[in-house]
Order: sequence, then structure tokens, then C-alpha cells
Amino acid sequence: MSINIKPLADRVIVEPAAAEEKTAGGIIIPDTAKEKPQRGIVKAVGNGKPDEPMTVKVGDTVLYGKYAGTEISVEGGDYLIMREADIFAIV
Amino acid sequence: MSINIKPLADRVIVEPAAAEEKTAGGIIIPDTAKEKPQRGIVKAVGNGKPDEPMTVKVGDTVLYGKYAGTEISVEGGDYLIMREADIFAIV
Amino acid sequence: MSINIKPLADRVIVEPAAAEEKTAGGIIIPDTAKEKPQRGIVKAVGNGKPDEPMTVKVGDTVLYGKYAGTEISVEGGDYLIMREADIFAIV
Amino acid sequence: MSINIKPLADRVIVEPAAAEEKTAGGIIIPDTAKEKPQRGIVKAVGNGKPDEPMTVKVGDTVLYGKYAGTEISVEGGDYLIMREADIFAIV
Amino acid sequence: MSINIKPLADRVIVEPAAAEEKTAGGIIIPDTAKEKPQRGIVKAVGNGKPDEPMTVKVGDTVLYGKYAGTEISVEGGDYLIMREADIFAIV
Amino acid sequence: MSINIKPLADRVIVEPAAAEEKTAGGIIIPDTAKEKPQRGIVKAVGNGKPDEPMTVKVGDTVLYGKYAGTEISVEGGDYLIMREADIFAIV
Amino acid sequence: MSINIKPLADRVIVEPAAAEEKTAGGIIIPDTAKEKPQRGIVKAVGNGKPDEPMTVKVGDTVLYGKYAGTEISVEGGDYLIMREADIFAIV
Repeated sequence: MSINIKPLADRVIVEPAAAEEKTAGGIIIPDTAKEKPQRGIVKAVGNGKPDEPMTVKVGDTVLYGKYAGTEISVEGGDYLIMREADIFAIV
Repeated sequence: MSINIKPLADRVIVEPAAAEEKTAGGIIIPDTAKEKPQRGIVKAVGNGKPDEPMTVKVGDTVLYGKYAGTEISVEGGDYLIMREADIFAIV
Repeated sequence: MSINIKPLADRVIVEPAAAEEKTAGGIIIPDTAKEKPQRGIVKAVGNGKPDEPMTVKVGDTVLYGKYAGTEISVEGGDYLIMREADIFAIV
Repeated sequence: MSINIKPLADRVIVEPAAAEEKTAGGIIIPDTAKEKPQRGIVKAVGNGKPDEPMTVKVGDTVLYGKYAGTEISVEGGDYLIMREADIFAIV
Repeated sequence: MSINIKPLADRVIVEPAAAEEKTAGGIIIPDTAKEKPQRGIVKAVGNGKPDEPMTVKVGDTVLYGKYAGTEISVEGGDYLIMREADIFAIV
Repeated sequence: MSINIKPLADRVIVEPAAAEEKTAGGIIIPDTAKEKPQRGIVKAVGNGKPDEPMTVKVGDTVLYGKYAGTEISVEGGDYLIMREADIFAIV
Repeated sequence: MSINIKPLADRVIVEPAAAEEKTAGGIIIPDTAKEKPQRGIVKAVGNGKPDEPMTVKVGDTVLYGKYAGTEISVEGGDYLIMREADIFAIV
């Protein structure tokens, strides 16, 4: 379930949830109109900063800010790497 | 009364109070003229930061700044997630 | 004398003094020309931050900066909620 | 010599020295050309911040920056209220 | 494998991975269209800041931000020198 | 050699060295073309900040940044008052 | 090898390496086209900040940022004075 990357310090790698492709009424949403998802699954977790252990774990579904993190491509997948402080909540 | 989300660190999830739909004189206020409410009910509370326990509790009615927090949609409801420092007072 | 609100942390609720409605010479000042008062009475006081007890008390008359605080309406009154650090002095 | 106001924390109330009304050659300086004085007498002193006792005392003549402090009017006098850190030196 | 430079404090010297010269379809990419690589190999590591030992080691493949670091030319090679905090993860 | 002013905290009073009035070739430099001197003699020294004793002493010749300090006129002389951190070196 | 100046705190005096006057092909580079060198030799070192001893020593060849330091002229030579934190590495 996790991936073979070790985030440094208080960083977390998140796989964003796929955006909805249809509206509730069944209308297909063109790519540019899809809102960037703000929900994802944690794939890798750093060791935290000194005296600040991490709270999230691999496998957690998390909510994060619209502009949180940096996009990275590793092992054929697209992920976001962000600091734990950018994560709002565990759902 | 609470919802099944765990805010991280010093974050709090607040359900904003519904804005008034009529003026005192009974005039219906169109949606765009309603002032964004600054009062709400706490729905979930994080564990706080190290050495800084949280003050607000689930169920408290709180006042917060006009631009505080980020809107999130979970379990079919619209909430604000904010830091406890964005909350001014418990009413 | 106090009101039933609990400010969080180092916040203070102040009731601004009414602005003068007439000049010394008796001329009535229109509403827009009245300078926003910078003097008020403390109505509620938070518990302070860890290791920083509060100095002002309910009932103190205080001076504060022209742009200090946020306006709130509670229990039918208009108040300012500000941090104690925004208060200059007790008169 | 002091006035009946208690500045909070590390604040100091200073009575600015009167600006010179004449040049050395006896020419009367119009009000707008007078340079704002940067020298004054301490009228009231706060209790300092935790672990930082105050250095200036009531009655000291001090030098301060051109834009230091906020003007306040109390007990019929015009004063500046500033932080001790805005005071450069005791003359 | 390392180079004969000693970065100061928490700095790290990274040799950026060569950018792809062809697209998957075999089209040669002109120089200006190549995206600056964000992956490289650590060549030298500082001693860290007091009480903050370094995590990355010489030889690690690391991911870093698009604008991280400063380009330097030493011993005939082009490297980036950056702070460890600019490194996102070890691959 | 010193003057009768007590700088507060980590402040230092410096008498700027007179700017050269002639070039090496003997040409008189008009006032506006003289570069503001960055070298001066320490005239008074504060007590330092808590746990940070002062390094410079009265009488030291020091180098400082082009825009360091504030000009003050006391006891008929023109001086600069600056923080010790604005002083680069003792010559 | 050193010069008779004592930098304060964590400052270092560096003598920039002379810029190359010719290209590899022997073409003389006009003055304005020479890139400001980013390599130099340490000439004097401060005592460091409390609890932060200095790492560089007089005689070290160092790399530093393009805009690091302030130019000073002392004892007939042109030097840069910078903080040790502006130095990237010892070559």
C-alpha cells in the first residue's frame, strides 16, 4: 500500500483522490472544470521533526488545503508531497 | 452531535450558523447580500499542539473572524476548519 | 457589569466609549466626521496565554490603537474584541 | 511629575519637548515647518515584560525615533505612548 | 563518489540527474523545452546545525523543489548547493 | 572622549569620520558627491541585551553599513545611534 | 595572511578571487562582462555568536552567494564582509 520513498522530516506523500468525472445529474465534466481534489490517501510518512512525532499514518484518508504540496511523479504514479502541517484532518 | 473527522493539531471544525433569511422588517434577503456568519457550533476538535491543550469543546458556540478557516464538505454537510487561534470567544 | 462571553487566550472585550456628538463650541458633528473612539471599558477578559497572566480586569478603562480589534455584536451591544497587546494603557 | 495612567507591559508615556518656535537668527518658524521633536520626558512607565525589567524611569529625558509611538490625549495633555525599544538613549 | 568540497552547516551538494533528451516517442527535445530536473544524487553533506544531525548521505538519490539551491561549478562539474530542508524525500 | 548619553540596550553612539574633502589628485569634492562615511569612532555604549554583553568599547574605530543608524544631534555634535548588530568590524 | 580587522559576531572578511581576464580561447573580457566572482579566501573571522562557534578559518577558500556581503576597503585592499551563514562551502 505504501511506496518506496522516504519523505524527509515532517513531510507526507499523499495520493490525491480521483476527481469526479460526472455531476450528480450525469453530465460529464470537462477536465478543466474539475475542481482539484482536496482529499487523498497517505502513501509515505517522514520521521517528523525533533520532539514532534507524526500523527498521520500510511493508509489514512486526509483532507488538505487546495494549494498544499508539490506534485511529484515517482514509480509511475502522481503524488503530492506536503508537510503534515498542511493536512487539516483525518477523515 | 460531533462528526466523524479528526482535525490535526490545534484545528477545530465549526458548523456556521445559518444566516438570517429575512430582515427584522420581514424583507427577504437575496443570497448575495447575506453577510457571511461569524458564529457557529464546534463539531470536532484536534488534540492541540505539544504543551498547548485545547480550550474549546464539541458543542460550544463560538465567534470567529470573517475570513477564518477553510470550507470543507464532509458527510453531506458544509463546515469550516480553522485553528483555535482564529476563534475569538465562546458565547 | 461584565457580559456573558468568554474570550479565548489573551483576548479582551471592550465597550468603546461613545464618541462626542458636539464640538466644544456646541456644533453637532455629523456621524462620518466623528473620530472612532480609542477609549473604552473592559467587559470580559480571557485566561491569558500559558505563563502570561492578564493585566487588565473587567471594569478597567483602557486606551487602545485606532485600528485595534474586531467589531462584534453580542447580547444587543456592539463591542470590540482585541488582544491585550493591542491595549496601550489603563487610565 | 508623573501622570495617572498605567502603561501596559513595556510601554512608556513620553511628553515631547516643545519644538523651537524661532530659528537661531530669531525668525519665527511657521507651524508646518517645525520638525517634530525627538526628545521628551518620561511621564509613566509600564511593568515591563516577563524577565525584562524596564530601564527608563519617570523624569528621564529620552531620545526616540522620528516616527516612534502613538499620540494620545489624556488629562488635557498630549503625549506619545511607545515601547521602550523605540527609545534610543537617555540624555 | 563524493567531491572534495565541505558544505557548511545544513547544506548539501547535489548533482542533478540529466534531463531526458528524447520524448517517449523519440522526438528530440530542444534545450529550452527540457524541464529542469528535480532529482539528483547527493555528492557532499555538511555537519548539520547544532542539535540537528543530517539525514541524507552521500550517494542518496533525492527529490527537491524546482527552484531549490544555487548552481555552482567545481572540479569541472555543475552542481546544486541547497539546504537539507529543500530536499523533499529520498527515493 | 565619551559623551554624556546612555544608549539603551544594545545601542551604540558613533561619531562618523569626516569625509575626505579632496581627491587624491587634490580636486575639491563638492558636498553632494562625498560618499557618506562608513567608518567612525564609538562614543557611548549601552549595557547590552540580557545575556548578550557588548563587544565594542568607547574609543573603538568601527566599520558600519552605509544606511546604518539614525542621525542625532546632542551636545553640539552630530552622531549616529545604531545597534551593535549594525557594526561590521573593529578596525 | 590575515588583515588587522576584527569582524564582529559571526562575520567573516573574504578577499574575492580575481575574475578571469581572458576566456579559454584567449579573448580578453571587457570589465563589465566579467561575472562577479563567488569564490574567495577568508582573511579574518569573528568570534561567532553565543553557543555558535565559527567553522571557517583564515586561509580557507570558500564559495558564497552572488550577492553575499558588503564591499569594504581597508588597508588598501577591497574585501567583502559577510555572515558565515552566507558562505556555502569550503573548497
